[in-house]
Amino acid sequence: MSKPLNITVCGAGAWGTAMALHCERQGMSTTLVARRPEQATQMSRERENTDYLPGHAFGSGLKVSSDLDEALGDADVIFLGAPSYALRDWCARIAQLESGILKSDALLVSLAKGLEVSSGKTPCGIIKEELPASIVGCLSGPTFAGEVAQGKPTAMTLAFGDDCGIQVQALQNAISGPNLRVYASSDLQGVELGGCMKNVYAIAAGCCQGLGLGDNALASLLTRAVAEMVRVGLDLGASLETFYGLSGFGDLVATCHGEWSRNRTFGEEIAKGSSAAEIISNQKTAVEGYRTAKAFHLACSSRSIEAPILEQVYQICYESKPPMQALNDLMTRDLKKE
Amino acid sequence: MSKPLNITVCGAGAWGTAMALHCERQGMSTTLVARRPEQATQMSRERENTDYLPGHAFGSGLKVSSDLDEALGDADVIFLGAPSYALRDWCARIAQLESGILKSDALLVSLAKGLEVSSGKTPCGIIKEELPASIVGCLSGPTFAGEVAQGKPTAMTLAFGDDCGIQVQALQNAISGPNLRVYASSDLQGVELGGCMKNVYAIAAGCCQGLGLGDNALASLLTRAVAEMVRVGLDLGASLETFYGLSGFGDLVATCHGEWSRNRTFGEEIAKGSSAAEIISNQKTAVEGYRTAKAFHLACSSRSIEAPILEQVYQICYESKPPMQALNDLMTRDLKKE
Repeated sequence: MSKPLNITVCGAGAWGTAMALHCERQGMSTTLVARRPEQATQMSRERENTDYLPGHAFGSGLKVSSDLDEALGDADVIFLGAPSYALRDWCARIAQLESGILKSDALLVSLAKGLEVSSGKTPCGIIKEELPASIVGCLSGPTFAGEVAQGKPTAMTLAFGDDCGIQVQALQNAISGPNLRVYASSDLQGVELGGCMKNVYAIAAGCCQGLGLGDNALASLLTRAVAEMVRVGLDLGASLETFYGLSGFGDLVATCHGEWSRNRTFGEEIAKGSSAAEIISNQKTAVEGYRTAKAFHLACSSRSIEAPILEQVYQICYESKPPMQALNDLMTRDLKKE
Repeated sequence: MSKPLNITVCGAGAWGTAMALHCERQGMSTTLVARRPEQATQMSRERENTDYLPGHAFGSGLKVSSDLDEALGDADVIFLGAPSYALRDWCARIAQLESGILKSDALLVSLAKGLEVSSGKTPCGIIKEELPASIVGCLSGPTFAGEVAQGKPTAMTLAFGDDCGIQVQALQNAISGPNLRVYASSDLQGVELGGCMKNVYAIAAGCCQGLGLGDNALASLLTRAVAEMVRVGLDLGASLETFYGLSGFGDLVATCHGEWSRNRTFGEEIAKGSSAAEIISNQKTAVEGYRTAKAFHLACSSRSIEAPILEQVYQICYESKPPMQALNDLMTRDLKKE
């Protein structure tokens, strides 16, 4: 049997923390790195992430740190748990340490689901740009952090490029357990785009729910969202099937129906009259769909990709379009063959 | 402008009643036919279907009857609102009246979503067998009756065979309104199969929820259900795209998440310890997924179609397999590329 992997999770938000808890339970040597030293100190003392994932005690083997240098040297796998807009900073910090510290075959795995507004890049696009020598992939799918922390059954997709090697399979096996099934994909672009788009669609779903339009309307909206996801994704170089899998359809369904989505809740609050910018400025946790709506607006406009739902969410978030009018505009298109 | 269509809805369950309410509001001459004369009398008196769709007053133009002879003579469109297992009886009654009574170009539109156990036939398959001269199609999609009755936004699919004619387009236009969008499809087999399968998957979803497995698990289950729906559907002669539309994916999502699905609730009750046969025998309304699970079990076995979710639901319903074990068996298949 091979040696257990050394895991480092960078970013101690809810999802990074849940992955760290899971990896430690799988018997791997695991370090959770917080950006702020105070947060690391607090988590070390309380053996819990009371700020972002309260109620889930850390296993005794889970190490907590804010010292990247120390945490990265032995890492076989580095999960990047930061939201997309904080990812470039994390990568820049890692790049400064890199020479001689990172193992040459270490895997960098993004957990983020948002596009960078300025570049339109996916999380892995950002990582590759900042750390060109690294092996980069992502882990995605319908994964509410609290449920993974509780050990509830979960399935997700681990995606690397065509160069999926033996380390990727080792990682797949290492994180798979009785309650977590991990499927492999080589469509990195599709898996990332699915996760990014669903966060925008979750805002639309939240608007639909906040306006009390009902389950019939929500189901229609999600049906059109999957079709749009496929159309946009194909135009941006992804594979069709990916969007019908866990990281597309699956994640969309979970986010738009589950209790725990910040993006969906954000849409609900807008529908009830709050302004998008206001909610964002008061928010402690990331609402990836907000910035990502703008990034898709720019990407789709410049490539003339038709994406009416992404566009309506953009207008709701950035042009103060009333959600009811936006959803009406989506519903009242011409009758046609489905 | 052409003359408004004459509509007859046979079967005064929740969904038949909601369609009748909707058609009347669209300005069509509409008759709702109850199987039992007592039910017709009660609805005439109360101007409401207090048994199956309480709280929605009938519009003043809606006629109620139990006299098929009278109700069918002028009908341009006959919606068959009975559950699948009662459909053959309704058709046989219509067949007895048929000569000279039904208009030769009348459309028969099934609203049912279940397979006949003895024959494996879809609702339209049954209708065609009993009324071979008729033009047969179905109306399907994510459509909780109460929401349609309330006038909440809804989209659905109207499917006829390749012979979709001018009457079908007239019907599409006539029932479409500001709150109801109707899309046309020529994949009758796919639209019907999607509706039938989703009622079985709804039972699995209910089990998942009844066992408290969480939103991650439910999203994975639904992702696999869509993939299975496509695989089974293709084997049975349907088109791929249909299952990603309103009548497949859309209806599945609504049924498995919405508050109103009897099939989902049935699964929840089984998960909490009731026996399937017991619940069915105490049920006033149809649980289409129960019989349909058996029909798919027979169809898939005889054609060697792999359908693990349909099969597990069959075993839960007919072989007393504990739902937790069934879901575990589904979750713990080998790791593989998605």
